[in-house]
Amino acid sequence: MQPMEIVELLNSFFDVMCPVLKAEAADIDKFIGDAIMALFDEFPDADPAPLRAVRSGLAMQSALHEWNAKKGTSLQIRIGINVGQVVRGDIGSKHVRRDYTVIGDVVNRAQRFEASAPRGRVLVGARTYFMTKDFVDYEPVQQLKLKGVSEPVDAYVAIRMKDVKAAVSS
Amino acid sequence: MQPMEIVELLNSFFDVMCPVLKAEAADIDKFIGDAIMALFDEFPDADPAPLRAVRSGLAMQSALHEWNAKKGTSLQIRIGINVGQVVRGDIGSKHVRRDYTVIGDVVNRAQRFEASAPRGRVLVGARTYFMTKDFVDYEPVQQLKLKGVSEPVDAYVAIRMKDVKAAVSS
Repeated sequence: MQPMEIVELLNSFFDVMCPVLKAEAADIDKFIGDAIMALFDEFPDADPAPLRAVRSGLAMQSALHEWNAKKGTSLQIRIGINVGQVVRGDIGSKHVRRDYTVIGDVVNRAQRFEASAPRGRVLVGARTYFMTKDFVDYEPVQQLKLKGVSEPVDAYVAIRMKDVKAAVSS
Repeated sequence: MQPMEIVELLNSFFDVMCPVLKAEAADIDKFIGDAIMALFDEFPDADPAPLRAVRSGLAMQSALHEWNAKKGTSLQIRIGINVGQVVRGDIGSKHVRRDYTVIGDVVNRAQRFEASAPRGRVLVGARTYFMTKDFVDYEPVQQLKLKGVSEPVDAYVAIRMKDVKAAVSS
């Protein structure tokens, strides 16, 4: 593939994925190579952030499936989701620039769930699982050894949304 | 540490590192968590990009050493360097934003050299090694197994600049 074709393919991919995230009121923090880093905040009258994150993860996999069929491609993506407290701030160097972003162990682990996810699947940590399991079917995976984490951690593959209406907290 | 202290520490760290990169005419592509992604282009009358990259990597480790001594901290960083053709373009989604950046296998491998570097060291690939070995002392490391790369690859730890004046191509 020529460089221009790679850029067009990647932008076309992001053009399909970002609206799926936006439909669940995610913020796109940044693109890192072919990856998207997205954040879900709590909002009044919206479904809880973990549920919106998992639902959009599953929707991204479906959207990619359709996009592949249309394009004649067979791209696969991994998705990782983690829930918890992050440090949010304007981070960078005064000599170059600063970007409003989030950092911390919770963010690092989200990336590690992504890296450990089976291709084409959505992998979440224990806290995300417990906060969404009434609405999502999961399969547990073998305990994961995460880089920089001494104890193996529980992780779950999201399979599909359950056929229940998600309660809206209000 | 409180969130504000973490942000201040990280920004202070970036404030020390970025000028070291800028002194070698690097471009700061982005910050990713506590990481800096930087690019080195060829310029007329400048030392070759691979040499400037390795020299700034060693200088960053020295600058961090001084910064730790001053702050009473003991942060350590890994640095990975790779040389080759990249795809450069304005990448992202028209629905959100696009960022001028580089992508491709050469970039991915740089990240993997970083992840595989011993703490406090600078790890480079074979091509960087061959392009800079007249000016830099290296120690070879055992062949590295990189994620997503079938064959193990050669890698070298940069130890110090040799006591020679780098030739300026003109």
